[in-house]
Amino acid sequence: METVGMVHGDRRQWRYGDVLIMAVMALAVDLHTVHTSDTYLEKRRHVVELEQSMRLGARQMLNEKERLVNQHLMAWKQAEVNDSLWEGRPFLPELHFFHARPLFDSSPVFRFIRSMPKGGNLHVHFGATVSLGWFVSNVTYRPHCYVCRPDPHGAPFFRFFLPPPPSQPECPWRLVAEERQAYTNPHQYDFDLAQNLSLLVQDPATAYPSIRAVWQRFEPYFMGVLPAVNYRPVFTSYLWQTMKEALDDGVLYLELRFTVELYDLDGTYSDKATVEILQEVVHSFRQQYPDFIGVKIIIASIKQKTVEQQEDAIRRTARLRDKFPDVVLGFDLIQHEDTAPSLLHLLNVLQQPDPPLPFFFHAGETAWTELTDQNLVDAILLNTSRIGHAYAVLRHPWVCQQVKDRGIAIEVSPLSNQVLKLVTDLRNHPGAVLLSRDFPVVISSDDPAVWGALPLSHDLYLTFMGLASVRDDLRVLKQLALNSLLYSGLQGEEKKRALGQWDKAYSWFIDSMYQQLQ
Amino acid sequence: METVGMVHGDRRQWRYGDVLIMAVMALAVDLHTVHTSDTYLEKRRHVVELEQSMRLGARQMLNEKERLVNQHLMAWKQAEVNDSLWEGRPFLPELHFFHARPLFDSSPVFRFIRSMPKGGNLHVHFGATVSLGWFVSNVTYRPHCYVCRPDPHGAPFFRFFLPPPPSQPECPWRLVAEERQAYTNPHQYDFDLAQNLSLLVQDPATAYPSIRAVWQRFEPYFMGVLPAVNYRPVFTSYLWQTMKEALDDGVLYLELRFTVELYDLDGTYSDKATVEILQEVVHSFRQQYPDFIGVKIIIASIKQKTVEQQEDAIRRTARLRDKFPDVVLGFDLIQHEDTAPSLLHLLNVLQQPDPPLPFFFHAGETAWTELTDQNLVDAILLNTSRIGHAYAVLRHPWVCQQVKDRGIAIEVSPLSNQVLKLVTDLRNHPGAVLLSRDFPVVISSDDPAVWGALPLSHDLYLTFMGLASVRDDLRVLKQLALNSLLYSGLQGEEKKRALGQWDKAYSWFIDSMYQQLQ
Repeated sequence: METVGMVHGDRRQWRYGDVLIMAVMALAVDLHTVHTSDTYLEKRRHVVELEQSMRLGARQMLNEKERLVNQHLMAWKQAEVNDSLWEGRPFLPELHFFHARPLFDSSPVFRFIRSMPKGGNLHVHFGATVSLGWFVSNVTYRPHCYVCRPDPHGAPFFRFFLPPPPSQPECPWRLVAEERQAYTNPHQYDFDLAQNLSLLVQDPATAYPSIRAVWQRFEPYFMGVLPAVNYRPVFTSYLWQTMKEALDDGVLYLELRFTVELYDLDGTYSDKATVEILQEVVHSFRQQYPDFIGVKIIIASIKQKTVEQQEDAIRRTARLRDKFPDVVLGFDLIQHEDTAPSLLHLLNVLQQPDPPLPFFFHAGETAWTELTDQNLVDAILLNTSRIGHAYAVLRHPWVCQQVKDRGIAIEVSPLSNQVLKLVTDLRNHPGAVLLSRDFPVVISSDDPAVWGALPLSHDLYLTFMGLASVRDDLRVLKQLALNSLLYSGLQGEEKKRALGQWDKAYSWFIDSMYQQLQ
Repeated sequence: METVGMVHGDRRQWRYGDVLIMAVMALAVDLHTVHTSDTYLEKRRHVVELEQSMRLGARQMLNEKERLVNQHLMAWKQAEVNDSLWEGRPFLPELHFFHARPLFDSSPVFRFIRSMPKGGNLHVHFGATVSLGWFVSNVTYRPHCYVCRPDPHGAPFFRFFLPPPPSQPECPWRLVAEERQAYTNPHQYDFDLAQNLSLLVQDPATAYPSIRAVWQRFEPYFMGVLPAVNYRPVFTSYLWQTMKEALDDGVLYLELRFTVELYDLDGTYSDKATVEILQEVVHSFRQQYPDFIGVKIIIASIKQKTVEQQEDAIRRTARLRDKFPDVVLGFDLIQHEDTAPSLLHLLNVLQQPDPPLPFFFHAGETAWTELTDQNLVDAILLNTSRIGHAYAVLRHPWVCQQVKDRGIAIEVSPLSNQVLKLVTDLRNHPGAVLLSRDFPVVISSDDPAVWGALPLSHDLYLTFMGLASVRDDLRVLKQLALNSLLYSGLQGEEKKRALGQWDKAYSWFIDSMYQQLQ
């Protein structure tokens, strides 16, 4: 067997030898030198092809231009893999994101993915959508912005008041402007604010020794930021900036997990008024940036409310969806799943809501088996439209079957699962198994602002390099972009239009890459 | 729905509420208070029962005594889960073993598992089977023991010589006795030796930043220790101690990955003489400890040899198996899989060995997909009897199917995979998925001495608490013990006898637990 024999003696060659043989086999080219093992290699080829044909993206076809672009993309990808295997350079999906973060920009694969039109981001929490630098410079500098610090090392809480708020002994409100002035260096003050909001630290293993520990630091972020974001003057510009940063990152469409609690100095807004304001902002944005497809919202309610409050939240959502069927998609429940009430316990409230209401449940965002993860069973039985995370799904054969048969998309957020300590090396994310069997998967970013990630590019790069196989190519990126629209809440004509818009942007992107690379 | 409603208002209660409802449902007891959702809960029960019936251990039945013992075991297990969920106490499978190690002894579940008869350990490398303390005190104190240190921070290399070895400038041999004498404190010297052999460190995340880094530290261990262990006077006592520590840990049977390179000061031993010496030691040990079932070996050859050397290794193994069919089970190839030659590259050598030879390949001990992990495909096509690790198996649907259909057992070594950086939180080990679908799984410990683990108890505890579900009980431990004999290389009457011996030991264990607990 010459083809095999000739590459002996050098470890590096061996690996390249594999690729060579695979290529030869894939092209079904002359293997007549391999007399003794023809049958074996034939069988092997069938197996490898069979498994490849089952992978997400396998059905996509590439045209001539795409094939050339793909060749370059795969050469870059292969180089990063080889650098890690043979040169000991860090492989980004293997590292904690906080260590990997400064290294992304030197990756040509990352630059490719950044500029590619990515379709939609279907699982991202409004309030964690905009970079913290922008938040500090644009929100905390507004008049009437107050801060209190329930935990001196945790997230500061913000809110706008006029007149000044009543004294609150356990956490006294102070004007941000006054605090900043009292600081020797206002830049340092701003830096510290962003620092305290973010989960980013030098040494995450020490700072967050357990899942519980990282969630205790994570949950206050929203309690601190949402009351500022829901202040109407902030809300409109934060929403605009959300779309702007998304679009700059190649994200054309957003479905936001959303809490309706708008207010200004004169009082609170009705749900209807809130959605109308949202619609206006999105409308103006789209006039300025017609490539952007739009925004829809999923109302997210904290799990730990009384039954009555939860019933009320569902009723309000149903009414709102009734009024704005094009904007309000449905209902979700949020909170650290391991310690929050289960879906089973909210069964009375969630079963047969009247009027009917689509659900987009978080479920199985946990390392436990036969505990918290049983939310997956309830999510399916309650007819969820998609599932957020479903990190534990592989341990549930019935749920896997349902997800596959009924096309219930799983919103996979690799970075979130890493930062919140479900997984370390992202090659071991269960999403890798889902991709290997073409499960209905969409990639989303959950809370990118909290860990300093881009709206979608970091997650998508890590998916392509870490969750996808070494040989998965442009077709997987294309399929994931398509999935993000196919499994979205876009309906009928609207979905067709969106797919057309993405296709246009994607073709333009391929053309321009082709020009550069040929 | 009263049963649900009444437990509102307290988070801890909620979780207990779940258990309550599940218990009620499992017993199919009066649910007449639950008018509105009977149908839902019925469906849910079916799903949960269906998934439970698919789990490893589900077919085991418990007798009355076992049921009582199981109740206590599950109360201890539940308490450890609750302590982690609600009190923030560390959950051992979530921690790196080096941090968790001092905490095991306080766990009643661990103490239970330590004293339980565990069947066999089918994947453990001879030379990493005995605690390092014993190695240092009993091997390095022998006359003619030399040491050299190719890497001052890595594993020292040992070997016995008489006359003294020729000078070797790149790593000069020195008598251990002389080095020790030159040290101010010989205890410190011994401590340092053990330290340098072990992978144990205070801060593994910093010490081993990548898979590659930890393997670079790990592989020299064997190069350092095996030439000492293969010195005949050491060999016999090391083998004895291997069995002794195993038996003390409740392991009744061993299949050792083994290298045949015995020597003494007069020269080297033939393969045949080596196996005869091994048989003698095992025979004497069994005379003293008749509960111990025995030892078989799998010849493990380093992947990175020339084709000729590999052919020779296979021929030698086949001849040896021919002579000692009851002792020599077959052949395996070892080395860090990511950087070693693939099985495909050794195809000529591995295909149709004559005489036929059973394989027990390591395969898929990797985080990569469609690279190193394709060894899994070749392992199956080459008709492997079991697979070592198969960590990547879930990303290979065809391999999964074959493993399940043909009963090719997967040797799961949780701790090894954690220390060698494939996984952090062991609840996310792919073995958790394998257990959820009753794949043919055996639990083994790979190289316990290198990370200061017991022969099998730590791995089995972590499997029971981390890979198994929260509700998996004594039945899973029983099934794993049975699997370790059913999927062993024991044949016919010998296997029957072994199962009988285990059953006797297990019944005695249950009786004594029952006496203590009732």
